Amino acid sequence: MSSKKRRDAPAEKALAARKRIKSSTEVLAQVNKLAAILKGSTAVARTLDGLHLPQTFREVVEKDADAVLDEVEGAIYQAALSILNGEGFTYDIPSRGRANQQYIPELDRIVLKDSKAPRTFASVKTCRSAVITTRILQLIHELCQKRIHVTKRDLFYTDVKLFEEQNNSDNILDDVACMLGCTRSSLHVVASEKGVVVGDLRFREDGDEIDCQRMGVGGKAIPPNVDKVDGIRSNAMFILLVEKDAAFMRLAEDRFYRTYPCIIMTAKGQPDVASRLFLRRLKEVLKIPVLALVDSDPYGLRILSVYMKGSMNMSYDSSNLTTPDIKWLGVRPSDLDRFNIPEQCRLPMTDEDIKTGKKLMEEDFIMANPEWVKELEIMTKTKVKAEIQALSSFGFQYLSEVYLPLKLQEGDWI
Amino acid sequence: MSSKKRRDAPAEKALAARKRIKSSTEVLAQVNKLAAILKGSTAVARTLDGLHLPQTFREVVEKDADAVLDEVEGAIYQAALSILNGEGFTYDIPSRGRANQQYIPELDRIVLKDSKAPRTFASVKTCRSAVITTRILQLIHELCQKRIHVTKRDLFYTDVKLFEEQNNSDNILDDVACMLGCTRSSLHVVASEKGVVVGDLRFREDGDEIDCQRMGVGGKAIPPNVDKVDGIRSNAMFILLVEKDAAFMRLAEDRFYRTYPCIIMTAKGQPDVASRLFLRRLKEVLKIPVLALVDSDPYGLRILSVYMKGSMNMSYDSSNLTTPDIKWLGVRPSDLDRFNIPEQCRLPMTDEDIKTGKKLMEEDFIMANPEWVKELEIMTKTKVKAEIQALSSFGFQYLSEVYLPLKLQEGDWI
Repeated sequence: MSSKKRRDAPAEKALAARKRIKSSTEVLAQVNKLAAILKGSTAVARTLDGLHLPQTFREVVEKDADAVLDEVEGAIYQAALSILNGEGFTYDIPSRGRANQQYIPELDRIVLKDSKAPRTFASVKTCRSAVITTRILQLIHELCQKRIHVTKRDLFYTDVKLFEEQNNSDNILDDVACMLGCTRSSLHVVASEKGVVVGDLRFREDGDEIDCQRMGVGGKAIPPNVDKVDGIRSNAMFILLVEKDAAFMRLAEDRFYRTYPCIIMTAKGQPDVASRLFLRRLKEVLKIPVLALVDSDPYGLRILSVYMKGSMNMSYDSSNLTTPDIKWLGVRPSDLDRFNIPEQCRLPMTDEDIKTGKKLMEEDFIMANPEWVKELEIMTKTKVKAEIQALSSFGFQYLSEVYLPLKLQEGDWI
Repeated sequence: MSSKKRRDAPAEKALAARKRIKSSTEVLAQVNKLAAILKGSTAVARTLDGLHLPQTFREVVEKDADAVLDEVEGAIYQAALSILNGEGFTYDIPSRGRANQQYIPELDRIVLKDSKAPRTFASVKTCRSAVITTRILQLIHELCQKRIHVTKRDLFYTDVKLFEEQNNSDNILDDVACMLGCTRSSLHVVASEKGVVVGDLRFREDGDEIDCQRMGVGGKAIPPNVDKVDGIRSNAMFILLVEKDAAFMRLAEDRFYRTYPCIIMTAKGQPDVASRLFLRRLKEVLKIPVLALVDSDPYGLRILSVYMKGSMNMSYDSSNLTTPDIKWLGVRPSDLDRFNIPEQCRLPMTDEDIKTGKKLMEEDFIMANPEWVKELEIMTKTKVKAEIQALSSFGFQYLSEVYLPLKLQEGDWI
């Protein structure tokens, strides 16, 4: 009998939690407050220029096709002039290596310092890369003129003989973006899409009117080219950023966004560039809080970090790809006890997990937030992780009916 | 000069090909003929029952929630009766192993033979699995009553203590589907979605009206639960099944379906259950040809085989998951020479590739089609493969503007 009792105890507590949930207005009061703070603070949003730092940094901006055409033509005009002067031609390529990267705590993201390297045609060492750079410039010009988008793989295949390996065209494409001072997606080279979105959100995509409240349970695929998106409108009070497909499906099927007006999106694991650009755009236009629902493990946090501060090899583009101010709603290590997650749903962390967890604690963006550090300390001390789905042990709809409402009601994000 | 000439030769031929494309009506004439043949032949579509085979086979059908509830209650009622009779309880579980599978050439798919194994509670060997089976039946009952869908992972987490490993709950879930004679998706346990669709297609999803012509370039995410889809309407003349995301993006951005009314879908590589169910449903309702655009390599064919004849471990469900009559449009090994794909875009096959290719040639569904065998012979003889993107070497839009229209115009599918 005692074993039976032990087994039911968490279930009873789960039931008690359900009773604490108030009306949806009351549930949303805390989010409302957070939204008000965010809307007030955006007036003083920090930019790299605004910081007046002594060094020079390099950041790229989103440019439209005509602006990119101007940049490409400018670069080629310079090269032609130089050739006519009998000097051959040279591109000045910003260095994108680790040594040229720097974390700016005020912006909470990595940016590029301003070191450059000449790429000269008349040099054995850089001749080949100068030729590839020219070819890429030409291809970009064609894409922008035709207003079409391709993948990096397509780009590679247009001249396999020259590029030889996709690595070469990929790398020099990033160089060209840096050189022209614009994002890679401005060059009309896009990543393949992975993400989906549902909820209180309408926008125009390539002229089509999209209403994410009427996208069934499958949702709308996040477009690969965010520059074809405009007219973003929403009455949502927050964006719920979900790590996993299964949790997204649960919330979409339960039409969670009808009770609690929000936008629900997921990139199904490690976020792709398209999803990161899309989130950034939503946040910029709507100025509403972003709350994250990820697994309680180092990998969940790593995903958050990619959304928030970008990945190392795209750091020149960090200002366009990142959404700094994301709140960690759950599942947090401290939730496991608070919500009485049964022992059998808690998984032991592997040595690799623990190593990653400890490494995360040393990262600037974590250290900047003492409450995140505290959660990571719990994780690495208890050596226990848990998936979002662990909440299913209290019933399939516990996530949408109890856990999330309670979290929102209590303003329990950090 | 001669090197320059050699380099441009394929490009000139590519240009010549473009000139051969006629008006869209003429391009579509061949597809029209194929569609007419298909519509005529569906009247005599073969079913397992219709074959009057001497052996008994086991196939499952799509059932609605109420029918599944009836089945579950029936099974539990039998168990209760048996217990009251003092005989404990036993489930009769259809065996899903390789020995119980058979390829039916007339249907062109794998089905289960009718061998069963008793799963008795009062037996040391099967006690545990009998308990898990009962628990799964109970959970399925809850899902069907609440009319909600969950993933296999969610199901596992509802009772980790009992299931111990997800493998256990997954396996017994398939057993239960077999036992109740219905598909796994009828049990309201669904796979996560991966596919996207655009084009001349409208349907209702969970009550929402979806128009895939107005889904921008990103497309509509294929719903994880096809039973929430109804009201499928379309004026499309064919379904274009695309292996890869990049090709899908190209066709979506070029609004290929406006010139050539079609439905374009991709599962982004290896097809998931949701995409296979969706394709099957489209084909059933619309009765239009399915043309496949895959890489010219064994992996591309393997993907086609999963759509057409199913995977081994879901063979009990092959009639609901498979779409037998798919035409291989391209990229076919013989296309490489026909379309003058430049040497540098052809990739050498690895030993593993060649082995897979040779193995494919021995499979029933390939041998049933001599033209497929011929293509595979070219592939394994030349030891060369190519991706869809190799067509980009003639220009980014060669796929949508030249290759596909020409293929359609010439009725060049097998």
